[in-house]
Amino acid sequence: MTTLAPRPPHPHGLFTAGEPVRSWTVSTAKPVRYEVAFTPDVLDPRNPALARAGAPAPAPGPAPARRLLVVETTVDELYGDRVRAYCAARGLDHAVHVLTAHERLKTMDAVFSVVEAMDRFGVARRSEPVVALGGGVLLDVVGLACSLYRRSTPYVRVPTTLVGLVDAGVGAKTGVNFGPYKNRLGTYHPAAQTLLDPAFLATLDRRHVGNGTAEILKLALIKDRALFRLLEAYGPRLIAERFQGGPALRPVAREVLGRAVHGMLEELQGNLWEHELERVVDYGHSFSPTLEMRALPELLHGEAVCLDMALTTVVAERRGLVRPAERRRVLDLMRALRLPVWHRLCAPAVLEEALADTVRHRDGSQRLPLPVGIGGAVFVDDLTPDELAAAAAHLKEYHARTAVAGHA
Amino acid sequence: MTTLAPRPPHPHGLFTAGEPVRSWTVSTAKPVRYEVAFTPDVLDPRNPALARAGAPAPAPGPAPARRLLVVETTVDELYGDRVRAYCAARGLDHAVHVLTAHERLKTMDAVFSVVEAMDRFGVARRSEPVVALGGGVLLDVVGLACSLYRRSTPYVRVPTTLVGLVDAGVGAKTGVNFGPYKNRLGTYHPAAQTLLDPAFLATLDRRHVGNGTAEILKLALIKDRALFRLLEAYGPRLIAERFQGGPALRPVAREVLGRAVHGMLEELQGNLWEHELERVVDYGHSFSPTLEMRALPELLHGEAVCLDMALTTVVAERRGLVRPAERRRVLDLMRALRLPVWHRLCAPAVLEEALADTVRHRDGSQRLPLPVGIGGAVFVDDLTPDELAAAAAHLKEYHARTAVAGHA
Repeated sequence: MTTLAPRPPHPHGLFTAGEPVRSWTVSTAKPVRYEVAFTPDVLDPRNPALARAGAPAPAPGPAPARRLLVVETTVDELYGDRVRAYCAARGLDHAVHVLTAHERLKTMDAVFSVVEAMDRFGVARRSEPVVALGGGVLLDVVGLACSLYRRSTPYVRVPTTLVGLVDAGVGAKTGVNFGPYKNRLGTYHPAAQTLLDPAFLATLDRRHVGNGTAEILKLALIKDRALFRLLEAYGPRLIAERFQGGPALRPVAREVLGRAVHGMLEELQGNLWEHELERVVDYGHSFSPTLEMRALPELLHGEAVCLDMALTTVVAERRGLVRPAERRRVLDLMRALRLPVWHRLCAPAVLEEALADTVRHRDGSQRLPLPVGIGGAVFVDDLTPDELAAAAAHLKEYHARTAVAGHA
Repeated sequence: MTTLAPRPPHPHGLFTAGEPVRSWTVSTAKPVRYEVAFTPDVLDPRNPALARAGAPAPAPGPAPARRLLVVETTVDELYGDRVRAYCAARGLDHAVHVLTAHERLKTMDAVFSVVEAMDRFGVARRSEPVVALGGGVLLDVVGLACSLYRRSTPYVRVPTTLVGLVDAGVGAKTGVNFGPYKNRLGTYHPAAQTLLDPAFLATLDRRHVGNGTAEILKLALIKDRALFRLLEAYGPRLIAERFQGGPALRPVAREVLGRAVHGMLEELQGNLWEHELERVVDYGHSFSPTLEMRALPELLHGEAVCLDMALTTVVAERRGLVRPAERRRVLDLMRALRLPVWHRLCAPAVLEEALADTVRHRDGSQRLPLPVGIGGAVFVDDLTPDELAAAAAHLKEYHARTAVAGHA
């Protein structure tokens, strides 16, 4: 996989006047392998998964394994005692760095705080993976810190929110916001292992569960019609019961989460570094980065994504890609999940600005995913400001009408 | 190269009680290809190399290619007019961001300054490589900014110092210092193309040429005895004449530079991400990161590397790996190149601390390269504080003796 090609090939010859100028081409490939696994009872001391995750087999001898854990503040309040008890029971020499993480704190300063904790703990370069417990923002911040620290150290993700479970936790991306731009700085550095334990969702507030459901809805809309039907049938109840529920609901929750993770990984695995810029998983992520940052802290990530999906669903209907009945089902499901379909920022000037930055992000073309029916997608490069304005106007009217009917 | 392995493989089945828990393994590889080419007359408007470097073929149509150039302050003073004239002559729509770069300014703030310039210019994600002109620090800073910006954008390196030409410019590493630690934060993100034009060295001051020669000496000591002989025979003159010289010296300069670049790439190409932590090119880089940072701004990078090499040469002699006559030749060459062989920081406590951080960097073992004769190397894990102290004492005495003889 690796070749070094000096041209012309005279590695040990003297240069002489008139000789062709010397050049080399380095051609290689970086192997990447990571695991995402549903891991119930991840904090049960009898479960070795977390203690073992991301590390080579322990060295023989009496020295205990060492772990730095970075735990989100709210997660520490709810689960900190269990985390420490787990480490103690498993004999880990550990330290816990508690970090408050939300979109406004998703900055390089948060990354520096993790780096300083790594220096204090004296993390070894390859054999002492940092363990991140928290939501999407915390996972992205710790991922970037580990990516940069000594030019990459391993880490383990334990998502505690729904966005973390189905989105931030399963891919390769790390990142922070910079200035007014969302995720402007980041890397591709997947966790060696991600342990998914849906039990953490039991303590999540309703709005954050809805927020994560928007990312599940994204996958349903562009590639998984069966998942859409499951959300229509069970979505509100899954949110109300935080994807837990009794014997009847639990298999449904597992199916929805499993399909979401599988669908996401299916799209990522062949395009982990986004060499291909037409990505169906970018659906809902064309206008939302600007909307989310402008509205901070009003909109959660998934809520901004839902605004984007509502907009492009209406655009797609007007292009004949989605039937009126399908558009109604989509918008009605968004409403039933209590996700927003319109916002005052969905105004022509903001949407055009958002599209301009996305075009730079997609290297000069719109490469805009639009839904085809429910469960399909197509890319277009010719969206016009008029189409956007018309779709926003339609949604403003729908929003006003359905808000009166009692939705959020 | 890419596989997604769900285990057990039932991507569309419902979960049922008692079923094995679901997990996925993503296995893929990131292809990396880059070019390093001697490119005389890189700023000559008739030479298209710089305008074309790192970019896909230009799109058809009248739109001019766009380039952001990041130019080190001193380079801008000396070559800024020629850089702008080149861009104008080649029809590039361009902006120049001038940045002061030296070891104390090798920080994330410098990276942010480049990122802000990229945002102001509106760099497209893949087709508008940032062009970096400067020494090793500038190249490392711009490389890190481009690595982080939108999770990686392409860039082109044009080294203007000897360290840049033979070291920072040819590898994959980017980085900045953080707190007291050298290159604590960084990535592996090689420039798409590096254009080497030794003509820039003509305006470099003597000390910085010597500084770069230390990195050439490193390669000579651990893998290229012929290069060592060239440095013995021509080193002082090459430095005095800034690797330029007339018809007689020029082929020697080319040979020395070519061997250094080739030798470096030979070592890097199979281990670009340092999965193997025993690296001969780490020779001289075990104690020097701490020495360099503690002494800031007194020691240049190559000078700190030379202190490290002097120390380990004496250690190797005492282990019988290097003969006394070889040790003398090595130290005498360092002196002839006016590089330091001892410094007041070469004290037991500092050296032990330096080794401790290097052990963490090498994941728990010393993996210390020691020279074998001249042109060979071996790795050891059992260096003792006593050996270090004895070697430092020997060098202190040699330093005092040769300094009296008139060397720096």
